[in-house]
Formats: sequence, C-alpha cells, structure tokens
Amino acid sequence: SYAKIDHHRGLRQGYPEVIYCEGKSIEHIKGIVKKMLERNSNILATRANKEVYEALKDTTEDIEYNEMARIIMIRKNEIKKSKSKILVVTGGTSDIPVAEEAAITAEFLGNTVEKLYDVGVAGIHRLLSHRKNLDEANVIIVVAGMEGALASVVGGLVDKPVIAVPTSVGYGANFNGLAALLAMLNSCASGVSVVNINNGFGAGYFASTIIKQIDKIK
Amino acid sequence: SYAKIDHHRGLRQGYPEVIYCEGKSIEHIKGIVKKMLERNSNILATRANKEVYEALKDTTEDIEYNEMARIIMIRKNEIKKSKSKILVVTGGTSDIPVAEEAAITAEFLGNTVEKLYDVGVAGIHRLLSHRKNLDEANVIIVVAGMEGALASVVGGLVDKPVIAVPTSVGYGANFNGLAALLAMLNSCASGVSVVNINNGFGAGYFASTIIKQIDKIK
Amino acid sequence: SYAKIDHHRGLRQGYPEVIYCEGKSIEHIKGIVKKMLERNSNILATRANKEVYEALKDTTEDIEYNEMARIIMIRKNEIKKSKSKILVVTGGTSDIPVAEEAAITAEFLGNTVEKLYDVGVAGIHRLLSHRKNLDEANVIIVVAGMEGALASVVGGLVDKPVIAVPTSVGYGANFNGLAALLAMLNSCASGVSVVNINNGFGAGYFASTIIKQIDKIK
Amino acid sequence: SYAKIDHHRGLRQGYPEVIYCEGKSIEHIKGIVKKMLERNSNILATRANKEVYEALKDTTEDIEYNEMARIIMIRKNEIKKSKSKILVVTGGTSDIPVAEEAAITAEFLGNTVEKLYDVGVAGIHRLLSHRKNLDEANVIIVVAGMEGALASVVGGLVDKPVIAVPTSVGYGANFNGLAALLAMLNSCASGVSVVNINNGFGAGYFASTIIKQIDKIK
Amino acid sequence: SYAKIDHHRGLRQGYPEVIYCEGKSIEHIKGIVKKMLERNSNILATRANKEVYEALKDTTEDIEYNEMARIIMIRKNEIKKSKSKILVVTGGTSDIPVAEEAAITAEFLGNTVEKLYDVGVAGIHRLLSHRKNLDEANVIIVVAGMEGALASVVGGLVDKPVIAVPTSVGYGANFNGLAALLAMLNSCASGVSVVNINNGFGAGYFASTIIKQIDKIK
Amino acid sequence: SYAKIDHHRGLRQGYPEVIYCEGKSIEHIKGIVKKMLERNSNILATRANKEVYEALKDTTEDIEYNEMARIIMIRKNEIKKSKSKILVVTGGTSDIPVAEEAAITAEFLGNTVEKLYDVGVAGIHRLLSHRKNLDEANVIIVVAGMEGALASVVGGLVDKPVIAVPTSVGYGANFNGLAALLAMLNSCASGVSVVNINNGFGAGYFASTIIKQIDKIK
Amino acid sequence: SYAKIDHHRGLRQGYPEVIYCEGKSIEHIKGIVKKMLERNSNILATRANKEVYEALKDTTEDIEYNEMARIIMIRKNEIKKSKSKILVVTGGTSDIPVAEEAAITAEFLGNTVEKLYDVGVAGIHRLLSHRKNLDEANVIIVVAGMEGALASVVGGLVDKPVIAVPTSVGYGANFNGLAALLAMLNSCASGVSVVNINNGFGAGYFASTIIKQIDKIK
Amino acid sequence: SYAKIDHHRGLRQGYPEVIYCEGKSIEHIKGIVKKMLERNSNILATRANKEVYEALKDTTEDIEYNEMARIIMIRKNEIKKSKSKILVVTGGTSDIPVAEEAAITAEFLGNTVEKLYDVGVAGIHRLLSHRKNLDEANVIIVVAGMEGALASVVGGLVDKPVIAVPTSVGYGANFNGLAALLAMLNSCASGVSVVNINNGFGAGYFASTIIKQIDKIK
Ligand SMILES: Nc1ncnc2c1ncn2[C@@H]1O[C@H](COP(=O)(O)O)[C@@H](O)[C@H]1O
Ligand SMILES: Nc1ncnc2c1ncn2[C@@H]1O[C@H](COP(=O)(O)O)[C@@H](O)[C@H]1O
Ligand SMILES: Nc1ncnc2c1ncn2[C@@H]1O[C@H](COP(=O)(O)O)[C@@H](O)[C@H]1O
Ligand SMILES: Nc1ncnc2c1ncn2[C@@H]1O[C@H](COP(=O)(O)O)[C@@H](O)[C@H]1O
Ligand SMILES: [Mg+2]
Ligand SMILES: [Mg+2]
Ligand SMILES: [Mg+2]
Ligand SMILES: [Mg+2]
Ligand SMILES: [Mg+2]
Ligand SMILES: [Mg+2]
Ligand SMILES: [Mg+2]
Ligand SMILES: [Mg+2]
Repeated sequence: SYAKIDHHRGLRQGYPEVIYCEGKSIEHIKGIVKKMLERNSNILATRANKEVYEALKDTTEDIEYNEMARIIMIRKNEIKKSKSKILVVTGGTSDIPVAEEAAITAEFLGNTVEKLYDVGVAGIHRLLSHRKNLDEANVIIVVAGMEGALASVVGGLVDKPVIAVPTSVGYGANFNGLAALLAMLNSCASGVSVVNINNGFGAGYFASTIIKQIDKIK
Repeated sequence: SYAKIDHHRGLRQGYPEVIYCEGKSIEHIKGIVKKMLERNSNILATRANKEVYEALKDTTEDIEYNEMARIIMIRKNEIKKSKSKILVVTGGTSDIPVAEEAAITAEFLGNTVEKLYDVGVAGIHRLLSHRKNLDEANVIIVVAGMEGALASVVGGLVDKPVIAVPTSVGYGANFNGLAALLAMLNSCASGVSVVNINNGFGAGYFASTIIKQIDKIK
Repeated sequence: SYAKIDHHRGLRQGYPEVIYCEGKSIEHIKGIVKKMLERNSNILATRANKEVYEALKDTTEDIEYNEMARIIMIRKNEIKKSKSKILVVTGGTSDIPVAEEAAITAEFLGNTVEKLYDVGVAGIHRLLSHRKNLDEANVIIVVAGMEGALASVVGGLVDKPVIAVPTSVGYGANFNGLAALLAMLNSCASGVSVVNINNGFGAGYFASTIIKQIDKIK
Repeated sequence: SYAKIDHHRGLRQGYPEVIYCEGKSIEHIKGIVKKMLERNSNILATRANKEVYEALKDTTEDIEYNEMARIIMIRKNEIKKSKSKILVVTGGTSDIPVAEEAAITAEFLGNTVEKLYDVGVAGIHRLLSHRKNLDEANVIIVVAGMEGALASVVGGLVDKPVIAVPTSVGYGANFNGLAALLAMLNSCASGVSVVNINNGFGAGYFASTIIKQIDKIK
Repeated sequence: SYAKIDHHRGLRQGYPEVIYCEGKSIEHIKGIVKKMLERNSNILATRANKEVYEALKDTTEDIEYNEMARIIMIRKNEIKKSKSKILVVTGGTSDIPVAEEAAITAEFLGNTVEKLYDVGVAGIHRLLSHRKNLDEANVIIVVAGMEGALASVVGGLVDKPVIAVPTSVGYGANFNGLAALLAMLNSCASGVSVVNINNGFGAGYFASTIIKQIDKIK
Repeated sequence: SYAKIDHHRGLRQGYPEVIYCEGKSIEHIKGIVKKMLERNSNILATRANKEVYEALKDTTEDIEYNEMARIIMIRKNEIKKSKSKILVVTGGTSDIPVAEEAAITAEFLGNTVEKLYDVGVAGIHRLLSHRKNLDEANVIIVVAGMEGALASVVGGLVDKPVIAVPTSVGYGANFNGLAALLAMLNSCASGVSVVNINNGFGAGYFASTIIKQIDKIK
Repeated sequence: SYAKIDHHRGLRQGYPEVIYCEGKSIEHIKGIVKKMLERNSNILATRANKEVYEALKDTTEDIEYNEMARIIMIRKNEIKKSKSKILVVTGGTSDIPVAEEAAITAEFLGNTVEKLYDVGVAGIHRLLSHRKNLDEANVIIVVAGMEGALASVVGGLVDKPVIAVPTSVGYGANFNGLAALLAMLNSCASGVSVVNINNGFGAGYFASTIIKQIDKIK
Repeated sequence: SYAKIDHHRGLRQGYPEVIYCEGKSIEHIKGIVKKMLERNSNILATRANKEVYEALKDTTEDIEYNEMARIIMIRKNEIKKSKSKILVVTGGTSDIPVAEEAAITAEFLGNTVEKLYDVGVAGIHRLLSHRKNLDEANVIIVVAGMEGALASVVGGLVDKPVIAVPTSVGYGANFNGLAALLAMLNSCASGVSVVNINNGFGAGYFASTIIKQIDKIK
C-alpha cells in the first residue's frame, strides 16, 4: 500500500528500477526492493546511506554499494556498453561524490563513461590540455560547485550537449549550490542545460537518454 | 573595439553567428552585424524588438523578422533539414512566444521541428491523445509556465531527452517564472534537464547539439 | 500562566483540543494536557516526538502514539464517522508521514478517510487507473514533494475541492519544500488550495471543516 | 493550433469555459472565444484589460465587462443561485479589486455571494460587530494585503472553511504580497487554506467546488 | 587584545555591560567578564548556554542563570524599579523563551514588567478579556511566531508604543521566523515597530529606553 | 460599502483619521474623505500622488499637499506642539522624501520635530559635529538607504529610542531597501527598532506614541 | 539644509567631490553642485540622466556628459595620469555601459586606464589571445553579466588584484545580476573581490585607491 | 586521478599551494598534500578541522595547526615579510576566527600584518581612538558580522583599499551573514570591495595581491 511500483517504466523506458532512498523508512525500502526483485529487474538505489545498505545486503546476491556516491546497485541482468561516450568532468576534488553518482548511474544504464576530474577554471590550462577528452565524447557532464564557471568554459569549447550539475561545494553566499545553479542557468555559452543541485543521478540519466538516441539510429 | 566577434564559434561549432540584442545599443548591433556579414555568415539575432529590426532591415537582403519570437534571421547560406526530429510542446497559449523562439532557433540551426501547443496538465487528456507526436520525436522541448508540471508528465511518458523551459507566465507567487523553474529542476521524472526562464533560444540550441550527435553518426 | 487554554474552540468549533508540541518544553506540554483533561476533552498532540509520548503516556488512559505521523491521540469521547469522504493521495512513498498526519487528524475529527499512496506523475498511469477512488471522494488531499505536480494533475481530473500539501521531500533547488509550495500555489488547474509545507494537520483539519458543511445540511 | 480548448472541463466539471488573458495576444484570445462560442458555453475571461474587452465586445451579445475585477463575462446559459452561501471579506478598501474577482467568479459559477469589506484587524471591532455575517456563511473567502492577519482572526472565530487570498497591497518588505502569503500559510488558526497572491479567481472557483459538494448531497 | 570593552556605554547610556555569547569561545567570554568585573559593573550575558554558565559561575558571587531565556545575570549594584510599566505579551506557549529574554532584560535594566502569555489570535477572546493589562502598560512588547498577527491586533487596540518581536516558532513556509517578521513590518496597525527574529533582548532594551524617557521627565 | 471608517481610532487613540491612498481608486478616496469630514476630523492622506490631490482639493478648505512627502493634510482642528522632541536624521539627500513623510506625520500628530539631514557614515564627522542635536531629542528617527549603517552609529551614541527607517535608495544588491532593512534589524547597537522600508509614516506615528507617553505623565 | 557637503573627503582622500544623482531632485542636485563649485573642486556626478545634464550644463564651463556611462564630469583642476595601470575587461558588448562608468571614474581620479571588451568565456580564445594586456596591468576590473564566469577565469590567469563587477545583463534566473554577483563572490580563483551589481563607479574608485598606494611609494 | 594539482599557480602567481579541505575526504587531502610535497612547496590548507590535522601531522615536519582559524601551514621555504602593511580590523570578538584566517593567510603569503579587534560601531570611539593604526596601513581588511556597518565607517575615514569580509555572526534576519554581505556591497563609502561571507582566506589573499603590486615597483 505504501508503494505502487512503476514496472511500466522498465518496459516503457528500457531502464532498471530506481529507488530514491532519502526520506523513506528502511522497512519501506526493503519492501520495495523485494517487490522489484520478483520481476528480476536490475535495481539502482540512490541517496542510500550505509545503514540502508546493511539492511539490504542479505536480501539478494549481486548487490554492491558505492559509499562515496551513496548508490546501491543490484545487477540481475547483464549491462551492455554503449558505443557512444559520456565524459564526466569536475571543477574540483570536492565535486567527485556527485560526479561519481552521475558516472555510476550512466554506467548502470548501459553507457560508456570517461572521467576528467579537478580541471576547474582557477587553473584553466588543466582543462585546455585535455581538449582531446572533450573532442572524443558525445555528451559531456560538467560537475562544479562554488561559482560553476566550468560549465560555461566547456560549453564554449565544444559543439555537443553539455549537462551542467551544480554542486553544493562552497559556503556563505554559495547558499548550498544556488550560486552555481544560477550561474549554469545563465551560461553565456549556448549548448548547456542544467539539472538540480547535486543531482548526479539526473545528469547520468539524462545523458543516457541522449546516448540511446544516438546509438539506436545507427 | 566594442565587440570581438567569435568567428571561431562558427567554425568550431558549425553554427551561425548569434547576437543577443537586449542591452545593446542599436549602433552596436548594427556594427556587429556588418562585421559578421563580411564573412557571409547566417545570423540569428535574438531578443530583438521591432526598433532593432527597423534599423537593420536595409543592411542586407535575406533578412526576416518574427515579432512574436522577437527573432531576426539573416540567411546567407542554405539551411538543411535534419533527419531526426525535435518536438516543441507548450502547456498553454501564453507560452507560445517562448516556444516559437525555441522552434525558430532549432530550424535556423538546421533541424526538423514539430509543434504541439496548449496541452497543459489542467486537461491532461489533451496530451495523452497526442502520444504519437511524443513517440515520433527524438528530442522534446517542453515549454510551460505557472507550475511547469507538464515537463514532469511528459518526462514520465517517454524515454528520450526532455528539455524543460520554464516561462514567466503567471503572477504572484510565480515570481516571474521561478515557480516553474524550481518545479522543473525538481522533476520526479528523470530524463529532464532545464534551461533558463523564457530561454527558448537556449532550448532550441541545446536540442540542436543533440540532433547533431544523432545524425552525424548514422 | 504559560498557557491560556482555548476551551472556546472546543465549544465554538466542535473540535477536540489540539496541542502543537514543537518548541514547547515537556513540562509545559504536560501541564497543558492536564488542564485539558479536567474538561474530559479529546486531545490531539501534533509534532510530538517519542520523548513527549514517553512523558505523557502515564498521565491518562486512552492515549495512543503514531510515530510515523508524530501524533499523540487521547480519546475521552467516542468519535463518529462522517458519511462524506476524504481521499488522501501521495506522489511517493517518502510523502507518507505527512499524509498520515493528515489522515489521522481527519479521522480524529470524525471523518471517513481513504488513502491512495505513491501515484506520482513520473508514472501517471498509476493515478489514471485509480479514477474510481477520485470519483468517490468528496474532498481530496494531495500530498506531494519534489515538484508537486500531482496536485495540478488531480485538480484537472475532478470537480471537487483539492487541498494541496507540499512536502519537503527533495533536495537542492527544492529548498525544503519551496518548489512544491510554489508549484501548488501556481497550479494551472483551478479547484486547488494550499496549506503550509508538511502541514498534514492543517490539510486534515481544513478538509474536515468542508465535510462538516456537507454532512450537516443533509 | 495555438489552443486546444478543453471542452472536457465543461462536461467533466460542470463549469463554464475560462480564459486567462494575461500574456495572450488579442488575436489569440479572439480565436479562442470564437471556438468556444461554437459550443454555446458560458465564458469567463479573467485578467482582461479594457483593450481586450474592446476587441471582443462585438463578437457576441450577452457580453459584460467589470473593469475593477478585470473580468469579461459571456452568458449564453442561465446561471443558477446556490442555496449555500459564500462570504467574501476584505481587510481594506484597496483589496476590493481582488475580492470582486472572487465574488464575480463565484457568482458566475452559480453561487450565492455576500460581501463584508474593509474590516481589517487595525480596527477589529469592525469585524466583531459583523459576527452574524460570518455565522451565516458556509464558506468564507478572506482577502487581505499588508500582513494578512485578518485570515487568522476570521479562522479563529468560525468552524467553516476559510479560503485566504493574499493581495499585493502594501510596499517595501511586503514584497508584492509575499508577506501576506507567508502569514496566511502559517496561520495559527487551523481551518485556513490559501491560494496564490491576488488570485481572486482561484478563491471563487475553489469555494464553488465546496458549495457544489454541499448542495448536491442535500 | 580580543575585546575592547565599551565602558563608555555604561557611562554614556546608564546601562549594565552586555555580552553576546554566541560565537565567542568560553575563554574569551571569561576574559571579558573578568575585565568588566574590575569596574564592578552589573553584567548581562545573553545567548549563554549551560556550558558558559558552568565556566563562569565560580568567577563571582551574585551570578544567576535563567536557562529558558539563556541569560546570565551578575548583580553588583542594586537595580531600581521604574514607575512606568512594560507589558510582555505572547501569542503562544512556544514563544515564552523569547518573551522571557525580553522580560528579564527589561527588569535587569531597572523596569517594572508584567506578562500576558498565550493570547494569540486563534482564540482572540483570550486577548480581549485582558484589555485592562493592555490599558495599564506604557509600552507593550508583543512576541509571536507563525504569522505574527498578534502584533497587529494589539497595535489596533492601543495608542501606545508596541514593539513586535517575531519568533522562529513554526515550520515550512515560516522560514525560521521570516513570515512573522514580514507580517510585523507590514502591520496595518500603525504604532508598531519591529526588532530582529527572536531578539527578546533587543525588545527589552528598546522598551527600556522609552521608559527612561518617560520616568526621567516626571 | 467599500469602506468602514474606523472612527473608534480617533477616539480610542486620540489621533486624526489616516488614509493610505496607494491602490485605492480616486472615487473611493473621495468617498472616504467625505464620510470622515462629516465628523470634522483632521485627515492625513499618505502615499497620495498629485492626481489624488487634484481630485480632493475642492472638497474642503484647510487642505494642503506636500508633494515630496506625497502627503495630503486636512486641518479641521488646531494641532498642539509637544514639549518633548523628535529628531529626524537622514544618511543622504536622497532619503529626504521618506524623512519628510515621517516629520510631517509626526507634526500633524502634535509633535515638535527637528531635522538633521545628510549626515551619513561615509563622512562621519558630519554626524559627530551635531552631537548636540542628538542630545536634545527624546526620540530619534534615523532614515537611511544603501547599507543603513547610520542607524547603528546613532544607536551607539545615545541612550534613547532610535527608530530606524530603511529606504529604497540604492541599486543592485540593495534589492529595493532590503539591504538597509536587514542591516537595521541586525544592528549591533541595542536601542534600535525598525519599521518597513520607506515607511516614514509609520516611524512618525510610532515616535508619536512614545512622545504621548512622555508628555502625558508629566 | 538638504545636504552637508563632505569637503573633508576631498582633503582627507585627495579626491574630487562625487554626487550620486539617482533619487535626488534636480533642484537638490543643482544646489549641491553650486555649493561644491564655491570651492573650485572637480566634480563627478554619477547615475545622471540627460535631464540632469540639461539642468546643469549652463551652471559652469568645463562640464562634459557621457551618456552611455551616465556620468557628468566637471573639471576645474588638471587631472594627472598615474604610472601604474588599470585594465577594464568585459564579457560582452552589453556590459560596456558599466565598464565605461568604471573607466571614466578611474580616469577622472587620475589613473591610466586600458580597455579589453567582449572577451567572455563563451569564446575563451578571445581572452587567451590578449594575455599581454593582462600582464601589463597592475589592477584588473572585470565587468560581466549573465553567469559572470569571466572574473574567475581572469583571476586564475594573473597574480594581481582582480575587481569583479557583476552586471544586470541577462534575464530570468539572472535576477537582475544576482547570478553574476553570487558567482563572483564564490569565485574558485583567489585574488578576486567584488563590488555591487552595475557598480562601475565603485570598481573604478576602489582600483584607484590601489593605484595610489602603488604610485605614492615609488 | 581525483586531483590535478595546479603547480602553474605557484609558478604563475608566486604563491604557495592552497588546499580547500571542506568536502574532501581525508584520503584525498592526504594524497594531494603528498603530491605537493614532492615539489617542496609551502602548503596552506584552509577549512581544516582537527581530524584533518591529525591525519596529516606525521606526513611532514614543519607542519602547524591553528585551530581557531582552522588552517594548517606547512613551511618548506622561508617566508619574507613585506615592507607595506595590512591591517585586519574586526567589529567584535566573535569575528576573530575569520579575522585570524585572513591574517594567517596574509602572513603565510609573505605580508606584514597588524590587528585591531573589537572596535565595532556600537561604541565608535573605540575605532576613532585608533586612527593611527588606520593611517599606517596600506590595505585594510574589515571583518564584521551582524549589520557589517564597520566597513562603511572605516571606508569613510581612509583613502586606501578597504576589503570587507562579512561574517555569519548574528541570527534571525541576519540569514547567516547575508545582512552584512548586502550592507557591505551597498556601502555608501566608496573604496570598499567585498569577499564572500566568512572568507578570511580570500581577503588575506586579495590583500596580498595588492601588497605585491606596491612592493614590487619600489
Ligand atoms: N538521486 C535522485 N535524485 C532525483 N531523483 C531521483 C533520484 N533517485 C531516484 N530518483 C527519481 O525518483 C523516482 C523514484 O521515486 P520513489 O518512487 O519515491 O522511489 C524515480 O522516478 C527516479 O527517477
Ligand atoms: N536569447 C538568448 N538567451 C540566452 N543566451 C543567448 C540568447 N541569444 C544569444 N545568446 C548567447 O549570447 C551570446 C552572444 O552574446 P553577445 O556577444 O553579447 O551577443 C552567444 O554566445 C549566444 O549563445
Ligand atoms: N504610508 C503608510 N504606510 C503604512 N501604513 C499606512 C500608511 N498610511 C496609512 N497607513 C495605515 O493604513 C491604515 C489605513 O488603511 P486603509 O483603511 O486601507 O486606508 C491605517 O491604519 C494606517 O495606520
Ligand atoms: N577558505 C577558502 N575559501 C574560498 N576559496 C578557497 C579557500 N581555500 C582555498 N580556496 C581556493 O580553492 C582552490 C583550491 O580548490 P581545490 O582544488 O578544491 O583544493 C584554490 O584555488 C583556492 O584559491
Ligand atoms: Mg583542485
Ligand atoms: Mg489553454
Ligand atoms: Mg514511488
Ligand atoms: Mg480601510
Ligand atoms: Mg496556546
Ligand atoms: Mg550626501
Ligand atoms: Mg559578444
Ligand atoms: Mg565586543
């Protein structure tokens, strides 16, 4: 009664089941996972703290936890690797947890993912010396906190979709990621769209819908 | 001295020159257009009011003005039509100016565009009875004001990239589009990314970078 | 001296005494309950954590605690069941605590309550396949977090009062429920009014004032 | 193509067609009205300035304009009067345009409406000496700007649904109605729900859904 | 070096020394108190938690701690009682800690203080039946959270200075006292001025400057 | 019907009738004034533009308009001068309209008012060389825009009530007076209370309630 | 009486008199200028529209108006040129009015100023190909709207003071310059400080205080 | 892979390596420090809690921790003392941690630093009696919370660069430093620029870039 699992989504969208764990009781999460397992789906549980993992880890085999990204993965079916490629870029080291959430989500959804971390605009040569990584990707996810300027700089260098993820890295007038969010929404570079603050999952998922369009038509 | 035209962008990104007219003096705009015309580029001037068009219209042939979308188009080179398709959807009639900015931008950048207007969630059967339009598109742009719920509903129905454009349609606690912006950033449907309030241009441009990835690989 | 109990409300409004526990010392809460018990009223204590319940549970019989809803109920007089019906709907599983606060409040005030949980717009078929529940209700309470789009969708499907309760489920640009609050206030569907973020109590109470109007006239 | 008229609403909800005029071109509004008139519906056009009325007034007979409320009414079918009653209350004289929008909407939807204007809390005896009006209503709409305290005071005096409409009357830290909106959402009186700032239409409509529930069951 | 004690204030303003403890290390607080004690001043330390008191209590005799108000008082000189009177009123029981901070501050500054707690507008008869208290005061401090309507109601009933103190009592769209703060700043009753959220100290101090003007001239 | 004049206020509070003109139709204002004139009251109409004055000026003799302060005064009864004194201080020349609203209001309510304009903290010697003015006043109104620092500096120099009026003078991150409002609410000087942005009327009125307390007791 | 001219500033700070025209009546501005001219000072009047200039232009010779920068300059004494150099950089063409306000202010205060306009991060090669300009400056003023990323990029390239001026160029979630302001305050590059939105004057003035320190010591 | 150390900065800017510790895992911080030590750089780690220090303290000699400022210093090369001088001023004792972050950063970058603490405007004579300190400095950093008025007062007294650091000292409508931030951005004194709330590091670093310009030219 507390959950109506949307199996249509799996069918409809060709994706695994996804559970957003924040704000759910462990009991509820467990119940949802069990019901999903009846259909043998792959399951991705995001925003899962260690306690959630402890409660779930004996429910099934093929379960894995990535603590930095706060993601639980249950693999019941093989996951393919896309031909097209997603590049995940971060401004700093502190943005990595969100970047990992994006990367793991994208991989779990069947995509080939590369990473280029800590190339923020305070030392822009770090980015410029990695042009090749930018050129080889089909979609780029830029994860940056503080003033989020990296999204604009990357957006100005390439002619491919750039998905910007503001992070809450920073303090004071950063307002928990608002500064980067507004910056990214107002990017003077044009091919940039934005997801919610710290929403690595959303960026990975959105990138994945693009890759599916690219790969399916070939 | 007042403008360093970014011809690299044309080369680098395979796109026309773009001018953002708001806040520029007519004299400056005219100067920029003239310098661009020396290289025979196609030119898209956004946020252009009628006065700007009046000042420009004798500068060149092949110039056209769309008043609703506030866009000036100068076509010096033929524009192709992509195989893949962008669908532009609006919640209401009041959102059409922003939707047209998106549609015209995307077409000017060489894309095939379809439109489905006034299918907001207050009468959701209007959207549900147009499933086919959703199914045939490769990328969907959802333009909606007030509470912006349409982006979530569309996002939940398809497994393709949905670009959400909040509009400033509404009043009071709408705060000039903030309500729809926040709603779209927090969409419970996953394949949704967001551009700035009323940024039809940005949505059309971003959609276009996706279509280029799809079509080029084929 | 620290509390002037408003017995008029019981008389005036035909309702039980209500205590809002947040920010009150346990000693004060205890004193208030004792004074109320002198008049043998039913008592509803909201936002009560376990510690409050522990302190109160030996004060009287007929006391019950619902931990998920953080509500203490003291039943000194029988509670009737209204003929007319309130339906409580949620977008997701995480919204249930607020929904339960609404449902329990409404029941404690003498209303018949039904529940339809986890039917958010990310998988809209879940809602559409429960049309009957919507049709049978006299008043509908919609509890939703993230972008709160469910209120608009329900509002567009029915011609009865829809009371929207934004929840703080979400993160980042959700701003602890602000996104859903603004969305609901700007609903493009017309028969929707709104209460405070997470205010399940207020929704249950307001719904109850409507049911009283319906049932009394019959 | 610019409008998909939601005739279902009329059927589904038993209500007239409604047009929100702000942000629509006069041409679009005219087209929408003509399409609606084909089905001989009653039509309510809100947020309509004089220019809109001038453009419409020769389209049909039975058309009327209320300038203060900025409402156009087209009456093609007789409108009944409900047995149950809505009372519209304002804090001050400046709130009257919004109150009139609520009252006219409610009347156009078939309700009996009474009015009690300029009884704000700065001189609370004005309200207290009108207790009888409060007692005779089934639903009360409270329209107030500045700090919106009137909603709480009315909410504390009655045991019926109170619909609060914040207005943008005020200046400075009023932030165009935000002060009253927040006050009303946080009302310490319980039977209060809220609609958007200046949303007289929404309050009248919502009140009407309640009256329909009351009167239909009898 | 970490503090330049403003002994001028004592002289200049005829008041005790005041220390604001939040954000100061215990070591710093201790040092400040010691330096003040050299001049044998009365000392009021606000926002002091228990730990601060523990650290100070052996520094001097005549020290007292009020935990609810989080105030430490050190009395080295006798404190007089003003002829004129301050009344402290609260909307609810949860506002009492802030009210006590105001009352204790005012008393420590030599004023006669009365209290009228829990007379909020949800049951307005509680206030109206205490008219006499209002009439006998020279200055009234109104402490209220949630929507802060009480300040306006009191302001409308009297012709004396009303000092409004918004509290952070509430949740959701209360935004930690912002709702009450805005309401009070926008009061439709005229003789109302406002201090910071939860600033009981400021209200007590400001009231005291008024009383000094009244009593000194007599 | 559009106005319930609060004659009690005159009686109750010993003050003239006050009309807040913003947002009222000229017709309504005229009606209100006429009704008030029946009782031969003094009338103060605030926020009155020239058009309002033109409409009123033939209604009665003894009418006067101050355009800078946007105030209309109708004097039917003699106005006394208090013994105690109010000083109105401004930070800059741009703050004068608000200061004049305060001064005129206070004078119209029977107070002796002095002025000290353009003594902001950017050149603090201008204030310090006017210590005498500060010392002779019983109540000080500080009107300041931009960062509103003047209120704190004055508050630190005196031991009398300081009423701070933030103005909307400034731009950018001033947010129409929000910067000064927040600064004044957070003043590190203690005897400071605050009224709404640009609310000269409120400051003059509040100061007047203090003066009445001082003078009546003598 | 409406202005206390701060001649100390000229003496104290070695600078011309400065008038902020916004919000002052023309009569007041004229009076202030006349009083200043008695001391034969250079005068800079900022935020002056054409009407102000028209009113002043016959008051004195040596008066000049820059319409784009909205500045009036009155030169009574020769202005020297500093050895050290200020570079003013803009992101786009639309930022030029603010940049000119900064440049003109700095020049009027005796500084050598160079300009590098329209080198925003959307085409970063435009900036990188002007490294020499950056290297030759002693202080750099970066003027940028939209997301204000240019300040961070410049800040990362140099080891000299970078003064960031956010402009209100942009729309929607730009919130009139808030996006750029927050971005600049949160710059991940370290040598960056910030002035108010559109405050070209402040940036020019602040840069000037630095140049004075550099040049005086030599 | 998790960090691309920007050794260019050291070379390019003549500064030590800097690590921002907040939001980085201890493992990452350790790895970064080790990689930096390979080049024998001086290292400054800001926002480092005790746990970080414990983890690092055995990695190298010459390591020191300042707990109040939350800074770790690793000195591998001698640090010079500038001829020109930075003065760090605070409003109160509670602002000292931020001031120390500024002072230590500036010293670590090779500057001569003096301090003047607790001279806020509530007792302005404390500042005025230290004119000499102001006069001897080349750059002044003003650290202040609450309403941040001190920056304006200092800015009005001197003709040298004033760097304002708002702190989060305060509560309620202080909004964690927003009040002081806005005040400082809107300072009516001209030579003031601003860094992020609590950003002592940024102020120290920015001041240092100025000192380098002064001292290098000599
Ligand atoms: N980390 C996340 N951030 C945002 N949305 C998420 C996240 N994880 C899952 N979701 C979405 O939340 C929905 C599941 O919600 P629920 O039914 O409450 O578990 C799915 O539609 C997901 O697309
Ligand atoms: N309507 C628009 N909204 C947002 N960005 C735009 C718009 N039109 C053009 N732009 C971007 O603004 C930049 C041009 O800026 P400018 O050099 O100031 O004309 C281009 O990079 C465009 O990508
Ligand atoms: N300029 C003003 N700002 C704030 N409140 C005002 C102002 N002028 C009058 N008022 C208040 O507004 C009330 C009159 O409102 P109304 O009945 O709408 O004219 C009176 O109680 C006054 O105290
Ligand atoms: N306390 C601080 N506040 C703001 N920025 C800082 C702080 N400490 C270091 N930084 C900046 O952060 C950058 C280092 O970021 P990261 O590579 O994430 O360690 C450097 O460029 C510093 O200039
Ligand atoms: Mg790094
Ligand atoms: Mg429509
Ligand atoms: Mg769910
Ligand atoms: Mg009135
Ligand atoms: Mg109570
Ligand atoms: Mg001045
Ligand atoms: Mg440009
Ligand atoms: Mg101190």
